[in-house]
Amino acid sequence: MLSAAFLDRLQSLLPPDQVFTDPVDCYAYSYDNSRRISSPEAVAFATDAAQVQAIVRLCHDHGVPVTARGRGTGTAGGSIPDRGGLVLSLERMTRIVSADPANRAIVVEPGVLNQEVQDAVRGDGLFWPPDPSSAAYCSVGGNLATCAGGPHAVKYGTARDHVLGLKAVTGTGELIKTGCYTTKGVVGYDLTRLLIGSEGTLAVIVEATLKLTPLPAGTAGIVAWYRDAAGCAGAISAIMGQPLIPSALEFLDAGALGLLRTHYADMVPAGAEALLMIEVDGTPSDIEQAGAAILDACRKAGLLEAKAVAESRALWAARKALSPLLRDIAPRKINEDIVVPVTRIPELLAGLAEITGRHAIANVNFGHAGNGNIHVNLLANPDQEGEMERAAKCLDEVFDLVIRLNGTLSGEHGIGAEKRAFVAKEIDPVTLDLMRRIKGVFDPKRILNPGKLFPEG
Amino acid sequence: MLSAAFLDRLQSLLPPDQVFTDPVDCYAYSYDNSRRISSPEAVAFATDAAQVQAIVRLCHDHGVPVTARGRGTGTAGGSIPDRGGLVLSLERMTRIVSADPANRAIVVEPGVLNQEVQDAVRGDGLFWPPDPSSAAYCSVGGNLATCAGGPHAVKYGTARDHVLGLKAVTGTGELIKTGCYTTKGVVGYDLTRLLIGSEGTLAVIVEATLKLTPLPAGTAGIVAWYRDAAGCAGAISAIMGQPLIPSALEFLDAGALGLLRTHYADMVPAGAEALLMIEVDGTPSDIEQAGAAILDACRKAGLLEAKAVAESRALWAARKALSPLLRDIAPRKINEDIVVPVTRIPELLAGLAEITGRHAIANVNFGHAGNGNIHVNLLANPDQEGEMERAAKCLDEVFDLVIRLNGTLSGEHGIGAEKRAFVAKEIDPVTLDLMRRIKGVFDPKRILNPGKLFPEG
Repeated sequence: MLSAAFLDRLQSLLPPDQVFTDPVDCYAYSYDNSRRISSPEAVAFATDAAQVQAIVRLCHDHGVPVTARGRGTGTAGGSIPDRGGLVLSLERMTRIVSADPANRAIVVEPGVLNQEVQDAVRGDGLFWPPDPSSAAYCSVGGNLATCAGGPHAVKYGTARDHVLGLKAVTGTGELIKTGCYTTKGVVGYDLTRLLIGSEGTLAVIVEATLKLTPLPAGTAGIVAWYRDAAGCAGAISAIMGQPLIPSALEFLDAGALGLLRTHYADMVPAGAEALLMIEVDGTPSDIEQAGAAILDACRKAGLLEAKAVAESRALWAARKALSPLLRDIAPRKINEDIVVPVTRIPELLAGLAEITGRHAIANVNFGHAGNGNIHVNLLANPDQEGEMERAAKCLDEVFDLVIRLNGTLSGEHGIGAEKRAFVAKEIDPVTLDLMRRIKGVFDPKRILNPGKLFPEG
Repeated sequence: MLSAAFLDRLQSLLPPDQVFTDPVDCYAYSYDNSRRISSPEAVAFATDAAQVQAIVRLCHDHGVPVTARGRGTGTAGGSIPDRGGLVLSLERMTRIVSADPANRAIVVEPGVLNQEVQDAVRGDGLFWPPDPSSAAYCSVGGNLATCAGGPHAVKYGTARDHVLGLKAVTGTGELIKTGCYTTKGVVGYDLTRLLIGSEGTLAVIVEATLKLTPLPAGTAGIVAWYRDAAGCAGAISAIMGQPLIPSALEFLDAGALGLLRTHYADMVPAGAEALLMIEVDGTPSDIEQAGAAILDACRKAGLLEAKAVAESRALWAARKALSPLLRDIAPRKINEDIVVPVTRIPELLAGLAEITGRHAIANVNFGHAGNGNIHVNLLANPDQEGEMERAAKCLDEVFDLVIRLNGTLSGEHGIGAEKRAFVAKEIDPVTLDLMRRIKGVFDPKRILNPGKLFPEG
């Protein structure tokens, strides 16, 4: 419980409309897209860096847990105040500090939405490449805390590749400045990327200098349907083995197509067990050349049909239709985003079929195949006796498989609270201990987002 | 001085041909391309990670400074054992552990040369983008220690953009493993990029998983001569302001052209005071389109002549001819690699002219204009009374100018020993203190490359 002294001091630091203490108000800050729930005892809304410093310093003085939060769209529980305490919402820090298209840079506060960045620079022929599916309503701060990516990461990389510098407040309330304003710079340690993906456990980002990229002149799509996963996986390797990298290479498996068939009878061709949705971008001649090379690479044993689609909406129709169906089918969807090297996708898919079959857990897989980043969904119903336990065992074996295939537990969602139990499968004790000690340098009282990223204990 | 106990133990750890203690043998490990000299008391050659661990552990136990060294091609003195002690040479760790073109990855030991990586993967249509001018004889370990870049960074980025994971030995001799093998991954803190550019002050890299890029189908060049620096700077901004990014955009100023004129009368057109050397790469149609767009952007006031050059040798002729001339002209060339935002290049060049003029110091500038990364050369003769002092004042003012223009002190050479005195101009005390404490986590006895990267004191 927060002490009266703490709350008094917090209320003296901020105007009344920047502090919530009523449990009803706080409730909206107790959940995110992970379906975990844990209420903070107070929510503070900072409107500038100095307020963030004052709030964190206060939490440091009182040993109060403080969980920074953007728009709460994460799927790993990274923004849930598991240990109660204070949620520090950055959603009111929404200034675009400066837009500098000539130097391909924009400086923003953390509450600026991903979409607002895109809107601010599109007219100058630029974009910011990180493209999580929540781009329209997630914040830059959250994108950086999780090192967000999305379908276009296969060509453009993820958040860590598109940031020049940061300002951030450490767990003692100190303001640090990382990186620089230019596209090259090697002065001091790369704290910029140390903070990106650290899930608010090291510092609270209060300003980011984002590196912008020229918008491609155009895009085009290819849809390829396969009779089986093996043929499709062969095509993924062939596409990624030729030099003209697609701007997106997305995959739906038999489970996903089965789900679509139950609702959209005409969407999926008879006999199709796997789908690739491929986007190419660039000038008309880039598109023509990459399109031809990729269409050629698609022509593997098991191909049912591959065709160019002119419209972006047609390209993504199956993927868009899938998401709500997944929500409906299982009250408790275990949604992972494991990654394996592209050539190991066939082994991954075969292994997933074996493991989920043995545990009798329904399984739907889809995702960013060009990065080997597959969203593995285990569909488990808590009302079915023993199903959640079987799903948990299944998940454990899936992670073991991923590690065996030289993969990683998470490509873009992060560890948050959801995957803490599995981190030690991937990171050895010596390296984990070093990470914990780095955490201690930034946040000696371990008040910043406690209970996240690291394994228990 | 190293104790007999330390040397005995070192010699017991390694075969005789892996330890040098004779000062004559050690001398070759006392210098690099910075012209600084400081001899180690011993040199150890590790041939695997376990030996690196044993050596560092021994140094830790005895509190002996240990400076990791690749091929000693750095220009900032980063590999010089300023405090004596042991040089740990990685030049015999030259195994290519695995080459995996299908997943665009190669795993190498730190002593593998940059060129050897290129040679190993060229047949598969791949390359590793970092391209320091010493690529033919510098090692991957050194490239990572400095976050090396080169002319192609304008399109492809620097070392930190092209590494998937590392194995490294901390200052206590512990082996850590960072990153992953896949192109996406967000599990734990990004220690990979924390180590890249840390100049051997945090850990000794013993293995690197490098991310490879498809080789462009071809390249072509454009050479553009300008009547004045202002016109040339305008063209740089125009080129970087259009969407088709050149694969290199290099600049020579009036001082550089003057130097060329004295030796190669026909090389420089009459009246030319600035030169751009521009490379475009990709498919023939990419080259055609980018070439046309860039040629158009070159046509600014002050343009004397712009023309396509078919041969790579012709494109780089002026740049290649310049380097030895710079060495000859001044016994003590102060060679910096500052960076400013591209649009601030005109102010930088005007400021450099003013500062060097006022201090009567000859000045030659050239470099990677597309990144705003300019090699500023102050030519000072120690035999001329007062000249070194004037050059030092001049340099200090140049750094102040760079910071005022929102730039950074070093784009690719690093801080090493050479620029320590200036770091505090760029990094504030709070952030520097945090970096020092991170150093302490990796290397509590501060034995790894002491006297580097951080300001004195």
